[in-house]
Amino acid sequence: MPAATAPNQQPATATETDPEALGWMRGFPPSPDRTITFQNGSFRNFPELRWAWSNVRQLVPTVNVWRGAGPASVLPREDHDIGAVASTTLDGRPMTFAKVLEETYTDGIAVLHRGKLIYERYFGALKPHKPHIAMSVTKSFTGVLAGILVTEGKVDPQAQVTDYVPELKASAFGDARVHEVMDMTTGLEYTEVYTDKNSHVWGLRRANGMAPIPPDYSGPTNIFDFLVAQKKQGEHGKAFAYKTVNTDVLAWICRRASGMTLSELLSERIWTPMGAEEDAHYHVDRIGTESGGGGLSTTLRDLARFGETMRNHGRFNGRQIVPSSVVEDIARGGDPEKFKPADYTTLPGASYRNQWWVTHNAHGAYMARGVHGQGIYVDPKAEMVIARYASHPVAGNAANDPVTLPAYMALAKELMAGG
Amino acid sequence: MPAATAPNQQPATATETDPEALGWMRGFPPSPDRTITFQNGSFRNFPELRWAWSNVRQLVPTVNVWRGAGPASVLPREDHDIGAVASTTLDGRPMTFAKVLEETYTDGIAVLHRGKLIYERYFGALKPHKPHIAMSVTKSFTGVLAGILVTEGKVDPQAQVTDYVPELKASAFGDARVHEVMDMTTGLEYTEVYTDKNSHVWGLRRANGMAPIPPDYSGPTNIFDFLVAQKKQGEHGKAFAYKTVNTDVLAWICRRASGMTLSELLSERIWTPMGAEEDAHYHVDRIGTESGGGGLSTTLRDLARFGETMRNHGRFNGRQIVPSSVVEDIARGGDPEKFKPADYTTLPGASYRNQWWVTHNAHGAYMARGVHGQGIYVDPKAEMVIARYASHPVAGNAANDPVTLPAYMALAKELMAGG
Repeated sequence: MPAATAPNQQPATATETDPEALGWMRGFPPSPDRTITFQNGSFRNFPELRWAWSNVRQLVPTVNVWRGAGPASVLPREDHDIGAVASTTLDGRPMTFAKVLEETYTDGIAVLHRGKLIYERYFGALKPHKPHIAMSVTKSFTGVLAGILVTEGKVDPQAQVTDYVPELKASAFGDARVHEVMDMTTGLEYTEVYTDKNSHVWGLRRANGMAPIPPDYSGPTNIFDFLVAQKKQGEHGKAFAYKTVNTDVLAWICRRASGMTLSELLSERIWTPMGAEEDAHYHVDRIGTESGGGGLSTTLRDLARFGETMRNHGRFNGRQIVPSSVVEDIARGGDPEKFKPADYTTLPGASYRNQWWVTHNAHGAYMARGVHGQGIYVDPKAEMVIARYASHPVAGNAANDPVTLPAYMALAKELMAGG
Repeated sequence: MPAATAPNQQPATATETDPEALGWMRGFPPSPDRTITFQNGSFRNFPELRWAWSNVRQLVPTVNVWRGAGPASVLPREDHDIGAVASTTLDGRPMTFAKVLEETYTDGIAVLHRGKLIYERYFGALKPHKPHIAMSVTKSFTGVLAGILVTEGKVDPQAQVTDYVPELKASAFGDARVHEVMDMTTGLEYTEVYTDKNSHVWGLRRANGMAPIPPDYSGPTNIFDFLVAQKKQGEHGKAFAYKTVNTDVLAWICRRASGMTLSELLSERIWTPMGAEEDAHYHVDRIGTESGGGGLSTTLRDLARFGETMRNHGRFNGRQIVPSSVVEDIARGGDPEKFKPADYTTLPGASYRNQWWVTHNAHGAYMARGVHGQGIYVDPKAEMVIARYASHPVAGNAANDPVTLPAYMALAKELMAGG
C-alpha cells in the first residue's frame, strides 16, 4: 500500500494509486486495509478518494436526476490521438497531454472539437456509464438553472434574497441581493479552507451529509439550518470571495421560485432535453436536500454534453436548452477588479460570473471547476470543450492549474491549426 | 394528519394517507411534521413509509444496477379496464379489483396477459420511472441468479456452504448445504418477527444499513459480520422456516462463485439482456454490500418484465435470459410437507423453492413476496403476470393475502374466459 502523503514527501502517483489495481473495495468482504467507509471518514483520504469520487452513492444517500425516457443524444466521434500534444507547465516543465492526465490524477477526460468527441479516456475507478462526483462543478449547473429562471421572470437578480427566502432575514444574507450570491460577492464570516478542519466548510459538509456527525455534535444537520446560521462579515457587493454557501442559498432561491426540487429542475430543464446518456444524482442531507454547491455526480460524457451546450450558446440535441442570453452573460464574465483581491495566482485577469470562472484570455475561455480536479473548460475561439473528472490528492485547483491550463491552451491552438 | 394506528383502531385508508396529498417531504424545507428521516427511524412508521418505500435512495446509500446502453424492451399495451372484476375475500367480503388496490395500499400495479400490458396504475408516491423497494421480492432475484450459476456449474446445490464461504465454518451455516439455504430449510436460532424490536431481524437491519445504529451499539455493522455470528437451532433440511439470513448467505455464495458483486451480476445477467427501462438499485451496508435479502428497488414495469421472463420459461426480449430449467425447477415447487409446519394459513398446500413461493393451486401459480405488499404473481395457466408495489401498514403478507389472492384468481379466470 502506498504511503500516505507525509511532510516533504510526494504523494504516490496516479498509476501507483490506481484503485482497481490496489483492490480498494474488492472482495466479499474487502480486506480491512482496503475497506472505505463513510462513518470513519476514510473516503476523504488519499488514495481512498480515488475510489470514492466514482462511488459516492455507495457512501451517502442520493436523489436521482432522471434523464427522461428518450434516446441519448448522439455525440459524433472522430478519434484524434492528442496524447502527444506538447505544452509547458507554469513552472517551466515540458509536458505532453497524456502526461498531464497522469500527473493530475485524471479519472476521465473527454475532448470535443467542433461538436465531435475526438478524445475520451478513463482511468482509476471511472467507467463511461458511471457517475463521478462533480464537486463544485455542481455550482455551475445551479447558476445556469438560476439563469433560466431569471429569463422566465421567476427570479430577479436585483431582488433581495429574503424576497424568496424570508427565513434568511437574520442571517448574513438578510441584506444581500440575488446577484451577489450568484457572483459570490457577499461579505461572509464563513471560510472555505479544505485543509483546515476548523474551517466552516467542514460545518457545511456535516450539515449537507458529506461528513459524519460526531457523537456530541449539536450543530445543524441539514443545509437549510446551516445557511440560516451564517454571519455577515464585511460588505456585500464589493469583492469576489469563493464561498459555497452562496450557491446553496441560490439553490434555495431556485427551489422557492420554481416550486421544484433541484433534481426535478435539473432533470426537466437540462438532463432530459439534453438527451443525457445516464441519470445523474445529487447527494442529499438528512432531510433530502440536494447539495447545490457540490453534490452532483454525472457521467463524463454527460458533463461533456453540458459543456457543448454552453459552447453552442445553449443549443444542443436540436433544441435551445439554455437561453442564449444566459450563456452569453456568463461568457462575458464578471468584474475582474472584484476578482483580483482574491489573489488566484493561476488565474490572472479572471472574473467570476454566475457560478462560472471566466479567464478573459485571448480565446475567451470559461470554466466550471471543482476540488480535486473536476472541470469543464469551454474555449469558444477554438470551438473546443474539455470535460474532466479527477481524484487529485490536493483539493485546491491551484494544484492542477499550472499543468492543465497551459495544456488546454496548447491543445486549443493545435486544434485551431488543424493539427 | 391521520392518527397513527392505535389499539382497536383501523389504520387510516390509502386515500387518507396519500403521501402526495399529505405533503410528506414537500417544501424547502418540509415542515417538521412532514419530515421523514433515516436517523430517527420515522421512515418505517405508517404513514411515513408510504413515501419512504418509493424514495429509499434518499434515505440510505445504494449501488446502481445498470440497465446497459441499449433500448428498453417493448412492453406491448392493450388497455383493458379490469377495475370492476369481482372477487370475494377469504373472510367473505365482496370486492372489486379496483377496491383491492385501495384496500391494500397499492403504490403501483401492472398486469400482463399473454405478454401484453393490459392494466397499469400508480398511486401514492410512485411514478412509472421511479424505483420502489421490492423488500423480499429481492430474494427471488437472488434465487434466480443462484440458479443461473448452478446451470453454469459455478454453484453446486449439494455442496457445503463453507465450500464457497469458509468464514461461515463456526456459524449455523457451518454444516449446511447450499440447497438448504436456497430453500430455507436450515435450522437457525434467528427469528424474523417484524413487530418485535427484539427479534433478530432488527439486528440484520442494523447490520445491513436499513436501521440506524444506536449510540452504544457494539454489534455487527455489516452483513458479513452478522451472518458469521448466526447460531444453529434444530436440524438443517427438515422444515421450511422463512429467515432472511439464508438469502444473504446465498448472495455471499453467488459473489464468491462469480467473482462479481450482486449488482454487477443482476445487471449483466438479467437487467441488461431483459432490456430494463430504468436502472435498479440495492441499498448497501456500511462497506458497500448489497442487501440480497431485501434491498432491491426497481420500477414497476421492470418488475413486470422480470415476471414475464419467468412466465416465458426464462425467455424475454428475444433471448433466453434465465435457463428454462431454473424457471421450471421453481415452478415445480418444493416439498409441501416441509412447508406445512410453518402454518401459513393463507397459503394451504404451498411450498417454497429457491426463494419463490409456489401455491400448487389449480393454475400452478408461484410468487415473489415482500413485506408491506410487494409481489410478483405468475399464473402460468392463465398466461398472466401481476407485479405490485405497495405500502401496507402491516408488514406481513397475511394482511394482503385474504384480499389479493382471491382477486388474482378471479382475474385469471376472467382473462381465461376472454372477459
